This record gives sequence, structure tokens and C-alpha cells, in this order.
Amino acid sequence: MRILGLLLFLTVTIGFSQTNDEKQIKAIYNAALTDGRSYDWLNYLSNQIGGRLSGSVQAQQAVEYTKKQMDSLGLDKVWLQPVMVPKWVRGAPEFAYIENQPGMTNNVPICALGGSVATPGVGIKADIIEVEGIEQLKKLGRSKIAGKIVFFNRPMDPTLIKTFEAYSGCVDQRYSGAEEAAKLGAVGVIVRSMNLRLDDFPHTGSMSYGDLPVESRIPAAAISTNGAELLSTTLKLNPKVKFFFRQSCKQYEDVESFNVIGEIKGSVHPDEIIVVSGHLDSWDLGDGSHDDGAGVVQSMEVLRLMKVNGYKPERTIRAVLFMNEENGLRGGNKYAEVATSKKENHIFALESDAGGFTPRGFSFDSSDANFERLLSWKTLFEPYLVHLFEKGHSGADIGPLKNKQVVLAGLVPDSQRYFDHHHAQNDTFEHVNKRELELGAATMASLVYLFDKYGILPN
Amino acid sequence: MRILGLLLFLTVTIGFSQTNDEKQIKAIYNAALTDGRSYDWLNYLSNQIGGRLSGSVQAQQAVEYTKKQMDSLGLDKVWLQPVMVPKWVRGAPEFAYIENQPGMTNNVPICALGGSVATPGVGIKADIIEVEGIEQLKKLGRSKIAGKIVFFNRPMDPTLIKTFEAYSGCVDQRYSGAEEAAKLGAVGVIVRSMNLRLDDFPHTGSMSYGDLPVESRIPAAAISTNGAELLSTTLKLNPKVKFFFRQSCKQYEDVESFNVIGEIKGSVHPDEIIVVSGHLDSWDLGDGSHDDGAGVVQSMEVLRLMKVNGYKPERTIRAVLFMNEENGLRGGNKYAEVATSKKENHIFALESDAGGFTPRGFSFDSSDANFERLLSWKTLFEPYLVHLFEKGHSGADIGPLKNKQVVLAGLVPDSQRYFDHHHAQNDTFEHVNKRELELGAATMASLVYLFDKYGILPN
Repeated sequence: MRILGLLLFLTVTIGFSQTNDEKQIKAIYNAALTDGRSYDWLNYLSNQIGGRLSGSVQAQQAVEYTKKQMDSLGLDKVWLQPVMVPKWVRGAPEFAYIENQPGMTNNVPICALGGSVATPGVGIKADIIEVEGIEQLKKLGRSKIAGKIVFFNRPMDPTLIKTFEAYSGCVDQRYSGAEEAAKLGAVGVIVRSMNLRLDDFPHTGSMSYGDLPVESRIPAAAISTNGAELLSTTLKLNPKVKFFFRQSCKQYEDVESFNVIGEIKGSVHPDEIIVVSGHLDSWDLGDGSHDDGAGVVQSMEVLRLMKVNGYKPERTIRAVLFMNEENGLRGGNKYAEVATSKKENHIFALESDAGGFTPRGFSFDSSDANFERLLSWKTLFEPYLVHLFEKGHSGADIGPLKNKQVVLAGLVPDSQRYFDHHHAQNDTFEHVNKRELELGAATMASLVYLFDKYGILPN
Repeated sequence: MRILGLLLFLTVTIGFSQTNDEKQIKAIYNAALTDGRSYDWLNYLSNQIGGRLSGSVQAQQAVEYTKKQMDSLGLDKVWLQPVMVPKWVRGAPEFAYIENQPGMTNNVPICALGGSVATPGVGIKADIIEVEGIEQLKKLGRSKIAGKIVFFNRPMDPTLIKTFEAYSGCVDQRYSGAEEAAKLGAVGVIVRSMNLRLDDFPHTGSMSYGDLPVESRIPAAAISTNGAELLSTTLKLNPKVKFFFRQSCKQYEDVESFNVIGEIKGSVHPDEIIVVSGHLDSWDLGDGSHDDGAGVVQSMEVLRLMKVNGYKPERTIRAVLFMNEENGLRGGNKYAEVATSKKENHIFALESDAGGFTPRGFSFDSSDANFERLLSWKTLFEPYLVHLFEKGHSGADIGPLKNKQVVLAGLVPDSQRYFDHHHAQNDTFEHVNKRELELGAATMASLVYLFDKYGILPN
């Protein structure tokens, strides 16, 4: 009798608790979809400021704009966290052509990779050799590579449903291609854009020369996918074609910039910190709407939704707008460094850095115990068509916060269109859908709500 | 011992079967994503033919083009099924303005609703009264309505995650608003566009006058959502504003058109028929890429994928491209009528008529037994991020096939952007993403494969 009574009590309690969570989450989605601010903020970031490369005037404008907006939300604290960031400048528009024979040329769209050195002022013209990746490059060896431009042309695998997996399978060419080619005496590198579509937009992105001394570094550029197809076909017809490219990009001394942080203090456990985040910097070719204006405005929106719904968090909730994710991760590293030095206890960090598309779920980096518990929350998200709760990568900026305890997560939006725009001139505001952006913000806010209410399990 | 042996045998058999299904489905997705034809076909339908309203020259071009393409696929049979369809023509561009006082006017974008009568050649100018729906209209009654233009302004509910539910909650204004207003002596009807976004595109769509005699019919038009907001605000400031509109649309005699049907004959159960479908006709304002060019080319692609993968279906698989879904459903009714008269045994019919967006799942109209069995297939779709298997509406064109036995299904793509484009000038090719379209086709083909292999359960 008493056991039955207890069971009934538990059932009722669980029932009530669920219902309350359901109500809170419904209120979050309703507010985001009827009176959201994220789309207006993104409009400003994208159309009044534009591309926000670290160290640029636009990056500084974005710092000031987002701080001002967060100041207006009635948070407990908003501050700038100084961080030194790299300053790389693209310079004059790049120029490239394929030369079948002297005077018979086809221009192709290229852009310098972020961090690349310039070509000489008159450009570089050389034989060009196509490889499908670094492994093949190494097999060919110095005799086949020295004096040439290396053309990395391994495409993203279209059969992978998760397009980030296709990206991971190719991006080594962009990141390390120049370093490896330079070691074999190449004079330049051209990389097929990380893009699943055939179009005319070259896609930039970060690269590294590793430990190469300055005098050994060779210029590297991305070519549009249509350009890559043209170049590959031309090479098959005439292996003696030459390739010309010119770029005037330059790395300057580091400059000071900022992470922008807004906080609502926890009412019960103020020392337990929850982070919701995106990155303020973007590449310079488009206006950075998807990468990662979306994550920035969604993170701000999470705090705003709490305020407008009159929700008083038990734990401390911070929106962190990181600087310099794209070419240095200095903001993420600095934030973690300061957190460690202050002995701050971060229990959960969420990043949105995969575009402002319809949210499909989350990718979690957590202990098994916490992941098991997370799975019990899945049903709360199903009415919002959010189905994916999986283990995996969280977000670059929050990675440095990783320890045994903290739960890290990345928002997983629909990824089919992301690489159409990623790091390219067409990452622009008109490609973000208002509802999709708002649904992402509400999905993030709902997860933050649950972590705020239930905390994490000890390890 | 023998029971254990049998259990082991069963386990192995089930294991093998699953693996084979997984392989078949993987082959379908791979072929769709690497060498798909759907996007090229849609390009032609959208950009070389354009909007395909029933009875139009473009509708006939679409019949001929899709027949020719199916003829080239090496199917067992391709044919045209004659059907008489309504012919309604929009005429000269519509024109409307809000008149605050004589000479002080604001033009607003409108379009005639499909099936509406014209205004007199000089247009109609009258007092205008805003209502939030048919119920309020009826409450106001003849004394408040007679002699006026009725402005139906209930917006779609943005808090509904499934946007089709928001559409269902509003579309009675468009479909029956003119009939009900006319009964109370109104002289015209203006309906807020079925659009979740604020923009300048009026969205057309079907309407009905019910049993109203011809002389009682009043003209009806949709106004863009921005226009509706402007009109509503203006009315609040000045209830005496007048509204002017002019349209010259006209209904002609029915004309002959066709459903286009392609078929692969079943090798084992040729009398069991599976239909995969979309509708060839579209509204006239855009090029009908999402509604429903996408469903047409996906259905053709399902048959093509079987052919290129060398899959020989056990049952008969038909792609049916229906004519006249938008304003009459004559194609769907004709197809079912012929099927009945020929005593054809349809076991499964699938329609794609919700846009060419990332597929999220299916909506099934089936017996409980078949639905239970369908749920056991869900895991096969999870690697493709297809999660929704739910009971509900299937598709307008296949609805007439409904009986106790047949399983009907609708593809459920992501719906967030659908009503940005639905029935409007901006339903155009550039808003369809190639991968999203192809994933939809592969998802449909995979379900067709399973029904072909396993059939349906008897009722």
C-alpha cells in the first residue's frame, strides 16, 4: 500500500515536472517565433557592418554593436574581455588564369587562403600539377613537384549526409597543403573550394605553414569548384598548361580585440556557469551571416528570451561572443585561460557555429552518465522537430573549456546548404531564413533552460 | 537445442535481410546524390517552361517534356491519361490602392485568387472592413457588410512548428471568404496572403463560390503581407478609407489535358501497383519549382534510380504526374476513376507536394497494422536524418485512391521556408537546393523500395 502510494506520488511528481518543462519550453519557442530579435540583430551585423575578419574595423564595430545591444537587455553584467588577435589583410582582389598556350588564357575565380603569403607583385606563373591530396603529393615527391604549382582537387564526398563529415574529409588540403607542397619545392598551391555545389565562388579559410621558416612559405589560394573542374579538364587535355595567380595579402602584427560577454547571475548556484556562444569574427568575403553571425545573435537571444519570459536562472548564464574563431581561436583560448585563472566552474557550454538553418539537434561532448541523462530530455524537443542527440564535436571556441566535468555541446542545424555559403562571398543575410534562425535560438534556449534547472551529474 | 537453433537461424536471417535493405537504400542515396537528374529536369520545367497553370500552353509543354524524359528512361510503359481540366486565366496585371482621401493613395500588391471573377473594367472602389475570419464576418452580418469590400486578415500562427498547420488554420478565408461575404452583400474580398513572412509578394491559391449563382459572385484577391499590415494600420487610423482594385481574370470552358504516367512492370506481383507522384500543374505567378515541380522530378527520379541501380521491382511501380491539383484535382480524380474501372489493385501511393526541401519523414494514411510495420522501418532512414513517421494527411492527388487496404503517404520535407514561396512570384528555381531535392527523391525511392519488397499487410 505504501509502496503503491509512493509510486503514485513519484508518477505525479514526474508528471508535473515534465509538464512544467514542457510549458517553459513552449514559452521559449513562442517568444522566439513571435517577437524574436535575432533576425534584426543579424540584419545589422550583416548589412550595416559586414564581414568581420579579426583585427578589422568591422570586427571592432561588431564588438561595439553587440555590447551595446546586450547592455540594453537588462542583464546583470556585460563586459569586454581583451584578447590579442592576428591581423591578416587580403589586399587587392586576387587574379588567376589558366594558360593553354601564350595568349590563350581562361580567367578563373580564386581567393587567397587566410594566413597565406602574397605572390610577388607580378604574380607567379608556373607548371601546375593536380593531386587528390597530401598522400599523393608525398608519393610524387620532389622530382615531380619542385618548381610547380600544386593543385589539390579532392572534392567533398556528396554521398555523406552530414556535410561536415565531407568537409572534414577534405580540409587537410586547405589547411596543410601549402606546408607540405613547400617542403617538396612547390612554388604555390591552388585548392579546390570546400563546396558541394558547382559554382563560381572561391571559398577561403584558414591554413597553416606549420614550422616552415618565413622564406620557405609559398602562396596558397582557393579556386571555385567550377574553376577547379575547368582546370582539371584542361590539364587532362594539355598537361603542359601553365597557371598564373597573383595575390597581395599580408599578415600584420597582432592587435587587441575582445570577446563580448553578457551575464545573468544565478539565483541559487551563481558559481555554476553555463555558456551559450557563437563567434563574432567572420571571413571577409561575404558578410558572415551564417558563419557565424547566426550563432552570435542566437546566443544573445537566449539571454533575451529569459528576460522577456521573466525566467530567473538558478545558475549563472553567459552569452559569450568569441573573437577570432576563424584564424587563431584566440578568443576561445583566452576565455578558457581566464576561467581557469579565476577557478570558475563551468558546467555546460553550448556553441552555435554551423549556420542559421533549421535546428535538427545537438552534438554532445560529455561523460556517459550525463549523456544518458540528456537522452531523457529528447522527448521534450520532439514537438519542435529536433531529433538528433548524438555524441561528437561541440564547437571550436568552447573546446578549450573541456575537462572531466563540463558538458560541451554544439547546435546541429540542417547542414545541406551550409557549404554553399561557407567562407564565401555568398554567405550573406538573404540566405538566412528568419524562422529557421529563430527556431535555432529557441532550441538553444530550451537546452540551456534544462541545464539551468537540473545542472549536471558528477563524474 | 532445436529451438535455440531456430532462434539462431531467425537472427541470422533477419540480420541478413536488414543488411541487404541497408545496402539497397545506401545505393539509392548514393546514386541520387552523385548522378541525380532531378535538378536538371527541374531547371528545364522551371526556367524553360515556367508556371504551368491547368489549361495553359505551359502545362501542355510540361506534359510533353516529362513524357519525353520518361520515354528516355527505358521504362516498360509511358502514357498520357486524358482528363478535362478547368482553364482560368489571370489577364492583365492586377492593380489596387488604399485611398485615405481622394487623391491620397497607396498602391498595394495584390493578385486575383484562382477561380475569381473579374472586377468591372474600371475596377471597384468601396469602403473596406477588416475581419479576422468567417465567423466574425457572420457575426457582423449584412448591415455591416453590404456594399463593402471585406478584408480577411487573420495571419498564419507563427508559433506552430509545422507550418502546414498554420496554413490550415487560415486558408478557409481564402477558399470560402468570397462565398460567405457575397451572401452578406459584400462587393469584393481581399485576403491576407498565406505567408509567414512580411514581404511584398501576394500569394494566390484556389477559392470557391460554392453554390452561389454566377450573378452573385464577387471578385476576390490576395494582398501581400506587407500590404495587409499597411491596410490594417491605415484602417485603424482612418476607418473611412476606401479600397480600390481591378482585375480581369476569366474562367473559360474546360480543356483537355493529361496525367503523365510511367511504369516499370512488377516481376513477381505485377498486379500490385505502387504509385509515386507529384503534380505537373502549378500556379502562374512563379515557375512552380517547389509547388510542385519538385514532386514531379522526384517521382521521375524514383523510377530512374531503380533503372540505373539495376533494381527489378517485384511489384509494378508507377510515377504519376498529376494534372490540375491546384484548382480542381481533376487529374487525381481521373486517375482513381480509371483505376477503379480497371479494377487495379493499388497497394501504396506516395506523393511529394510540400516543396523540395530537406526530407524529414513521411505522413501516413494507413491501417494501424501497416503503420506499426512501417515504424519498424524507421531505423533504416535514420542514417539519412529522416526521423518523422507519423499518421496524417498524405497528398491531395492520391487521396481519391483511398480504400481500406491501400497505404497512402506524403513526403514531409522541412516546412519552414515553404510558405515564403507558396503560390507566389518567388516560387522559383533558385530557391531549390540541389542536395535537398535529391535527398527527397532518394528518401521517396527508399520507401518505395521497401513497399516493393515487403508489400502491405492485409486488413
